Amino acid sequence: MSASAARPGVLISEVGPRDGLQSVKATMATAAKMRWIDALVAAGVREIEVGSFVPAKLLPQLADTAEIVRHGLTHPGVTIMALVPNLRGAEAAVAAGVHKLTIPISASEAHSLANVRKTRAAMVDELRAIVALRDRAAPRVKVEAGLSTAFGCTIQGEVKESDVVWLAQACADAGADDIGLSDTTGMANPAQVRRLFNAVRAAIGSKTGAAHMHNTRGLGLANCLAAYDVGVRTFDASLGGLGGCPYAPGASGNVVTEDLVFMFEAMGIATGIDIARLIAARAPLIAGLPGEPVYGMTPEAGLPKGWAQAQA
Amino acid sequence: MSASAARPGVLISEVGPRDGLQSVKATMATAAKMRWIDALVAAGVREIEVGSFVPAKLLPQLADTAEIVRHGLTHPGVTIMALVPNLRGAEAAVAAGVHKLTIPISASEAHSLANVRKTRAAMVDELRAIVALRDRAAPRVKVEAGLSTAFGCTIQGEVKESDVVWLAQACADAGADDIGLSDTTGMANPAQVRRLFNAVRAAIGSKTGAAHMHNTRGLGLANCLAAYDVGVRTFDASLGGLGGCPYAPGASGNVVTEDLVFMFEAMGIATGIDIARLIAARAPLIAGLPGEPVYGMTPEAGLPKGWAQAQA
Repeated sequence: MSASAARPGVLISEVGPRDGLQSVKATMATAAKMRWIDALVAAGVREIEVGSFVPAKLLPQLADTAEIVRHGLTHPGVTIMALVPNLRGAEAAVAAGVHKLTIPISASEAHSLANVRKTRAAMVDELRAIVALRDRAAPRVKVEAGLSTAFGCTIQGEVKESDVVWLAQACADAGADDIGLSDTTGMANPAQVRRLFNAVRAAIGSKTGAAHMHNTRGLGLANCLAAYDVGVRTFDASLGGLGGCPYAPGASGNVVTEDLVFMFEAMGIATGIDIARLIAARAPLIAGLPGEPVYGMTPEAGLPKGWAQAQA
Repeated sequence: MSASAARPGVLISEVGPRDGLQSVKATMATAAKMRWIDALVAAGVREIEVGSFVPAKLLPQLADTAEIVRHGLTHPGVTIMALVPNLRGAEAAVAAGVHKLTIPISASEAHSLANVRKTRAAMVDELRAIVALRDRAAPRVKVEAGLSTAFGCTIQGEVKESDVVWLAQACADAGADDIGLSDTTGMANPAQVRRLFNAVRAAIGSKTGAAHMHNTRGLGLANCLAAYDVGVRTFDASLGGLGGCPYAPGASGNVVTEDLVFMFEAMGIATGIDIARLIAARAPLIAGLPGEPVYGMTPEAGLPKGWAQAQA
């Protein structure tokens, strides 16, 4: 974020335009995506994962990512991120002008092989190549590694904490700027979140990055609280829980941005986000995806009596 | 619980048969309530709030509470609780043979006047009379005061923490065995939960009782985690989130027992409850209230791969 903006206690990284939109069947029109992103920025969101640089035939919903990146860049002070699965994607992302790349690397070997047909070690090699590209072509671009299935895997079951720490260290050694932990499968619990973030921080220190929690079994906010307790200050979330019903089986179950922001703001931890405007940012999302359900308990219940005064 | 049973790390106090059933329009048949309670006990639930001793014309759904209490008492080692709003209710509860009474006292003067047309001080007098009855007629019965609207009020807005501490002290002085804090309105946040339980414990020590959290804005489990962190070991919850949709406005939004048990068990904190059997206890609830929605993300998502082995 820009140096002139207020310094919030936590950074909420909105992943809906990537993680959410890739999980729904419908394709949001490019202009609608732009309106949605504009509304997020107007609410005070300062980091947005706007898309993914993957072949359009794999994810037609995100085929306009380069255009969305360029639109995002018109907002000063907002970090525009994109997901890249490999070096080719990173080249496209850098060409589009992103501020930050995120590359998902699975902590579960079984999940890595099933998902990208590469071992974890091969993905670390890919990360190293991406870092080299960044160093050569775009030294100001940040590179994040997001360790998926860090808390458990639907294929292999348990993921050893030593595997996660090893992988985080390997990513740090490969030159990633920060390494986040993702509860891809909704299997994390607060004790594990504290233990694992502490272990990763002991290994890689300030390169320890974001918590990407899911609400699959209702523990999303509790896990975010647990991560905050051990020093995590960046949290991924999706407006309206977009990306599948967070209250249903098989869903991606992203943490709902509105509820997460409500929790932190209620605790007196500044997010830099105006929650009323954040709730208003649901309108362009809903308009852009007719018929797609959106979630969020704070938007449904409304803000508590006395909220505005308490925050003022 | 019985001395012979394993000693769990937390006590989950099931409030569905009282708090849940009083919030739905339909009346569950007495035999169905008994089957539901039997299933809860079979799952390992060791404390159940089975009803409320209020005039049948006010809550016809709970008119059979004395009969339900007597049925509950057939289960050895299970604490059978009932809510009483006043001395007359306490007399009926003691006559029915309950192990424990709970009397709700609002921390918000405005809520107290609106809800029971009595001041908080008058309610403390009522509590004192109930304690005297207990001492005289049933010395082994425990008396709990549940401080409702402890974290905020939909009528007056903020509830001062000093008011809650004052009221907790007054209830302790009046002879209550333990004093719980209820987020009646779904306004609590984790920082407040930690602060307020710590403040109450500083005033009344081991008389500090249960956390009764709501999930109105999605923070139910995070608030339970926060309460656990500061030493709370008894948690109220409602099977299936019964008592109004926890994901909708105006709902009572009770914390879902299944999700709460999943959180603690996943953390390695024993509840004494078999979660698969707990999920099975939804069947008699659903059968007894046809058409009434039940909630819970863990039941919908299912237990994670590897769960059984991890818990064994």
